[in-house]
Amino acid sequence: MNELVVGVSQDAGVPGDVEANLELMVRSIDEAADRGIELLVFPEGFLTGYFLPELVPASVPEAQWAVDRLQRLARSRKIGLIFGMIEAVNGQCCNVAVAISRDGKTVARYTKRALFGSWERRCFVGGRNVAVFQVGAFRVGLLICYDVEFPELVRELAVDGVTLVVVPTALMEPYNAIAEHMIAARSLENQIFVAYANRCGVENGLRYVGKSVICGPDGSILAQAGGGERALISARLDVEEIKNAKFEASYLDDLKRLHAADPAGMPGN
Amino acid sequence: MNELVVGVSQDAGVPGDVEANLELMVRSIDEAADRGIELLVFPEGFLTGYFLPELVPASVPEAQWAVDRLQRLARSRKIGLIFGMIEAVNGQCCNVAVAISRDGKTVARYTKRALFGSWERRCFVGGRNVAVFQVGAFRVGLLICYDVEFPELVRELAVDGVTLVVVPTALMEPYNAIAEHMIAARSLENQIFVAYANRCGVENGLRYVGKSVICGPDGSILAQAGGGERALISARLDVEEIKNAKFEASYLDDLKRLHAADPAGMPGN
Repeated sequence: MNELVVGVSQDAGVPGDVEANLELMVRSIDEAADRGIELLVFPEGFLTGYFLPELVPASVPEAQWAVDRLQRLARSRKIGLIFGMIEAVNGQCCNVAVAISRDGKTVARYTKRALFGSWERRCFVGGRNVAVFQVGAFRVGLLICYDVEFPELVRELAVDGVTLVVVPTALMEPYNAIAEHMIAARSLENQIFVAYANRCGVENGLRYVGKSVICGPDGSILAQAGGGERALISARLDVEEIKNAKFEASYLDDLKRLHAADPAGMPGN
Repeated sequence: MNELVVGVSQDAGVPGDVEANLELMVRSIDEAADRGIELLVFPEGFLTGYFLPELVPASVPEAQWAVDRLQRLARSRKIGLIFGMIEAVNGQCCNVAVAISRDGKTVARYTKRALFGSWERRCFVGGRNVAVFQVGAFRVGLLICYDVEFPELVRELAVDGVTLVVVPTALMEPYNAIAEHMIAARSLENQIFVAYANRCGVENGLRYVGKSVICGPDGSILAQAGGGERALISARLDVEEIKNAKFEASYLDDLKRLHAADPAGMPGN
């Protein structure tokens, strides 16, 4: 089995209302499972809300009960889930992505490393570690939103053998070029798949771009949502397509050649 | 003067015929100067031809006389020129980009570092050095074709303070996603300008993508040529727009924060 059907649920959540967001997730999970989606991705902070302006550890909504519920649902519907949430950990707020396997186990918990702007730097403590795990034939790596805008962080995963980067995000206007161009570039320059799950609508004054996208290892856009509305997009990914993309040239192999030609001068060495 | 009018001449050259290619360049230079373009960029290998299948040092067409002529023309029309050519240097073929200033001096000569595929690796010796120089308010860095597809090579220039990356290229099908997405991503992720000058038409069986493009520091496409035909595109670049693009977040500053948070683990350190 070289294939994996990946879906992205683009939606507008309700800030701070875990029950309401869980309900939206359950609806998408049911629809996705009915459509044969094997791994479903939700946006950044979706379970709790992302842009919670008065955010401090004490105000983070309790959501472990909802994670438990999502684990049971994953197992009963046989679908992997990746979603964002805000957590209070050791008296600090973290912006995390949680991955639940098709048999209902939490297989990864990733904390966003690249914090965007003064609000995030004030509210969150940044993560230090990568999160990589296997889903069928794919080696999956997690990033969150601003992380993926740094080519260094995606390269790090690709060098580690990741074939699918999954990115819960909360991309707001006017940064449309990320969804329209940069995700395709990240896929192509690493010859891997990328699934980028964005919010839509408005959250406490932030207007999101939507345009969630799944890209292939040749930089092609396999599926993309519209800008303004809820959408459930999906694509059947075949890990063999990575070999096809490398037919004439492998960026990682050629990067090694560049390093070998100039070991001192090359960045990224 | 914070502004610079940059033009890109997308054209199909004549393989191996320096005289014919010079004539095409003179036509574009005249048109560009008439339009107020201050720096005009031509594709990879344009003066000599790029894809010359039987390429060995002895078969490289003599072109220094044409470079001399271009220097005089640059001075008389007060226009900077950047163009690609194949050169034989010390018994080896190099794929170079030459930059001539508005007063007719050769200010930079850059040799392509990232060689694409087996043909280039067999024919060319790769360069080792960057080429950076000032044009008005802009610090310009040169790359050629496949070089720009490595985020590491563009980052290196941006960290060095480059505000405009100029890229003569010979992008062939099916690699359209480079021109359509990756150049915009390179601009955005470094918050700089990029001018990407591609060939069009067919050269010894290679069909080029065209779609030459000039992108801004917010990832916007300022000008883009069509796929199949000769075109002279241009954009007025304002170096102040780089500050505007960094209003909420500077990628280079945030990259330093990532390095500081995890000095051992960060790639590109």
